[in-house]
Amino acid sequence: MNHPVSLGLDFGTESVRAILIDAAGHQLGLASSEYANGQITETLPGGDTLLPARYALQSPGDWLDSAASATCAAMVEAAVTGDRIVGIGVDFTSCTMLPTRSDGTPLCQLDSLKSTPLAWPKLWKHHGALEQTERMNAVARERDEAFLQRYGGTIGLEWFFPKMLETIEQAPDVAAAADVWLEAGDWLVWQLVGGPAESLTRSTCQAGYKAMWSASDGYPSDAFFSAVHPQLAAAVRSRLPGVMRSPGEVAGGLTQAMATRFGLRAGTPVSAAIIDAHAAVPGVGAAEPGTLVMVLGTSSCHMLNANVAAEIPGIAGVVEGGILPGMFGYETGQAAVGDAFAWLRRLLGLDSFDSLAEAALRLPPGAQGVMCLDWMNGCRTPLMDGSLRGAFTGLGLEHGPEHMYLALMEGSAFGLRWIVELLRDGGVPIERLVATGGLPHHNRAFVEVYADVLGSEIEIHPSTQGPAVGAAVLGMIAAGPEASGFQSIREAAGAMASVAKGSQDIVRPRLQRTQAYDSLYAQYRQLAKRFANGTCLD
Amino acid sequence: MNHPVSLGLDFGTESVRAILIDAAGHQLGLASSEYANGQITETLPGGDTLLPARYALQSPGDWLDSAASATCAAMVEAAVTGDRIVGIGVDFTSCTMLPTRSDGTPLCQLDSLKSTPLAWPKLWKHHGALEQTERMNAVARERDEAFLQRYGGTIGLEWFFPKMLETIEQAPDVAAAADVWLEAGDWLVWQLVGGPAESLTRSTCQAGYKAMWSASDGYPSDAFFSAVHPQLAAAVRSRLPGVMRSPGEVAGGLTQAMATRFGLRAGTPVSAAIIDAHAAVPGVGAAEPGTLVMVLGTSSCHMLNANVAAEIPGIAGVVEGGILPGMFGYETGQAAVGDAFAWLRRLLGLDSFDSLAEAALRLPPGAQGVMCLDWMNGCRTPLMDGSLRGAFTGLGLEHGPEHMYLALMEGSAFGLRWIVELLRDGGVPIERLVATGGLPHHNRAFVEVYADVLGSEIEIHPSTQGPAVGAAVLGMIAAGPEASGFQSIREAAGAMASVAKGSQDIVRPRLQRTQAYDSLYAQYRQLAKRFANGTCLD
Repeated sequence: MNHPVSLGLDFGTESVRAILIDAAGHQLGLASSEYANGQITETLPGGDTLLPARYALQSPGDWLDSAASATCAAMVEAAVTGDRIVGIGVDFTSCTMLPTRSDGTPLCQLDSLKSTPLAWPKLWKHHGALEQTERMNAVARERDEAFLQRYGGTIGLEWFFPKMLETIEQAPDVAAAADVWLEAGDWLVWQLVGGPAESLTRSTCQAGYKAMWSASDGYPSDAFFSAVHPQLAAAVRSRLPGVMRSPGEVAGGLTQAMATRFGLRAGTPVSAAIIDAHAAVPGVGAAEPGTLVMVLGTSSCHMLNANVAAEIPGIAGVVEGGILPGMFGYETGQAAVGDAFAWLRRLLGLDSFDSLAEAALRLPPGAQGVMCLDWMNGCRTPLMDGSLRGAFTGLGLEHGPEHMYLALMEGSAFGLRWIVELLRDGGVPIERLVATGGLPHHNRAFVEVYADVLGSEIEIHPSTQGPAVGAAVLGMIAAGPEASGFQSIREAAGAMASVAKGSQDIVRPRLQRTQAYDSLYAQYRQLAKRFANGTCLD
Repeated sequence: MNHPVSLGLDFGTESVRAILIDAAGHQLGLASSEYANGQITETLPGGDTLLPARYALQSPGDWLDSAASATCAAMVEAAVTGDRIVGIGVDFTSCTMLPTRSDGTPLCQLDSLKSTPLAWPKLWKHHGALEQTERMNAVARERDEAFLQRYGGTIGLEWFFPKMLETIEQAPDVAAAADVWLEAGDWLVWQLVGGPAESLTRSTCQAGYKAMWSASDGYPSDAFFSAVHPQLAAAVRSRLPGVMRSPGEVAGGLTQAMATRFGLRAGTPVSAAIIDAHAAVPGVGAAEPGTLVMVLGTSSCHMLNANVAAEIPGIAGVVEGGILPGMFGYETGQAAVGDAFAWLRRLLGLDSFDSLAEAALRLPPGAQGVMCLDWMNGCRTPLMDGSLRGAFTGLGLEHGPEHMYLALMEGSAFGLRWIVELLRDGGVPIERLVATGGLPHHNRAFVEVYADVLGSEIEIHPSTQGPAVGAAVLGMIAAGPEASGFQSIREAAGAMASVAKGSQDIVRPRLQRTQAYDSLYAQYRQLAKRFANGTCLD
């Protein structure tokens, strides 16, 4: 029997993955395609314009080319034709954003602007807006803006409006030519479904976490933007057309042109976009409140749906309907996880940690006195300070690389425990922990240390494609009950992405180690306090 | 023409070196001989008695065997006979100490006690007396003992009386059999010159730095020792026979038996012993006040003679005549230097730092934000706290092993600058800095960082045998003016050990780097304060 099938498109930093999953949860096809121009950090494509330090751009043509190619390959693998595909979901890195003409043409595709770096899409990790971010935070604090409370008190360097202001100030010709400013994920969806700029779909997820938007208050006020820069205020008034929709809500049907390009049926419903990490929540079948979904990769993103809205200092954001419709979505994160491990591995002159793992895990909790602050890329939650840096302390001649390795795992786990306690203390329930992303599959020992430090069970979700699966779940929801057979998002996520009871890989805490970690965690908090630039939270 | 020759015997941790130097400063012969039993840390020789952790013992027979063998080899190389050798100097690790019978027989050579670990000489690094040291410090502080001021406020774990008390408490049979407790250097000199216990020569250097003795007050009072332990007080009253003499003063003439064993002339004058590191002061020709002699090895010892007595918190000791007669000798130190470099090298998986040195030295001062506390073996001066441990801070994903390496060099240099400022602020002049020991010859770059951080010239003394040369200078002094031709110790040290003007290897500070280090040093002091267990000094 032929279940309906959904297509999930997962746009990462280097490539896009296309996944085909049916309503019974069978993965029928999976293919990925690297962007021809990858991350653009040194020179612009087709020219020799040198980019300043901290720039990271992308080419919008790559996104569509790679998506069409990956979709085609996944359909061949799955041996399904376009008429069986009932919906399309899209997740995207964020805030990756660009300026376009009113017809959706990216400004970097105009001859007059193709040599201007800031006409190109800025990738999430583009760090050109340092000065603008500081200024925006200063104005917001001075005006005591209420929206700050939803973001732990700080506007991020990688967010939407700092990137927009950077262009307004640094490239006035680009700003003058921009009819529309939007997230790359929204642009992609717009390209798929067509229509005028006035009715393009903007994702509440991207807008909520990266553009200080909320369902009740909209964007920050004109007065705030005017205080930052009059041109920014003017652009916010007239250059952000569109309609807000939650992930899973329908943005429109596939145009004939795109249907032809992708080999799909014209009119296939397309969901509003979602941030890639956030897509992992439905992608591991977690559509209920109270499950912390930990996407462990180069950095980590920990997401949680709840029925309550709470203002918690130091979280990345709380957005109504930001992850799934009808719930408050909380986003928190750790800035360096896989990145920090790779860094330590290189530092110690090792090809892998395999030779060290056994010795490290034989050590008692606390690595015999060595302690680590894993802030090698700053601290996201709860300190929201990218300028912080990491440390190893308690080092003695008796310690070797295995102590550093265990200390780093413990430091990362202490950071997670801090986040969990912060949310719980703020009144947001956490009843279940699910780990996904690349790291848990490479390194189960690391999840064991997490479980010991938290004193909680952690389920490792078997999929290494959580975001792509989540996008497919959202595509199925967009298809509607008639085509999909699902009455609710919980039902769809449960059928398509959750693991059968009894077959989960559950990492259980070891009581003795958990007990030892209680006092070590208190020591870690003391250490963090000494290094937190005086902004430490108790 | 045949200048008179002196023999220096330099007793280290693993071996003894014999050096023959004539009055014109020519090194005629040098030989070393490893101790057959080396450091005894696991089982006693000739048995299978397992030793507890932290034990480090030696065998007294090894000292004499190796000294005779090295002397013989040096004389063959030098082609000199015993009648040309006019004096003998002895330096020794300290506090290495042992209990003997009244005739000088070490208790570990008695059949009845040879299986008892605490009957054996305890090497300087033996750390069995942790609990006794704490207790002794507590009593001294409670009684507000004036002697504490001479030692920066703290009795060291490796010193004489903690080691003695450890034996009294842990091995009563050994304590009961001990007629004499003494430093290994004093025992060695006693073996060479013979005589009854009542007239054995004790070195003011060893007694002053390691047994809280001073020329004006002698040992601490009976009341103090009684408050610590009545048996300790009784042993101090009756088991410390002998006469105090400064290094360079004559302990006696070589016995016929020893003359035969060493191939020397009976009656050859033997100097009172000196601590090995302290011997480097005359060993680099620094017999005048105001020269800081830095012996840079696995740990570092920085010594200084002055005409003034000052009480400076955190120094290892100030002893009248402790290094050379007629001056106040200041001892300070850093607990891990070469040790810390070897540790970092192993940690980073490197065979040597050669591949890293160029990249490290190209970095600007401050290692781009990475900072190091080099307390991997505790902090000697000025915090006198062996329980402290090291740290690297300011670590980011952008940093590599070269940053750690430069940060460690800088951390060590900052520690030295702290010591220099402490002495100067206390009113003790430092006009000249001389580096000796193994490290400066292996790693000149390291001395360059020292010079930059201090903003001072540093002379690297060419001899890698500073202590042995110093012992030979003291042997020449002991020979007296008639045999040696020298009227003063300054004259002898100048002729035998100093480098001709104009041919010194002088490392000069680089002004730009020195300026940058001023504010980095202030940051280092802030960091040290955060980690100093609350005992930090301003």
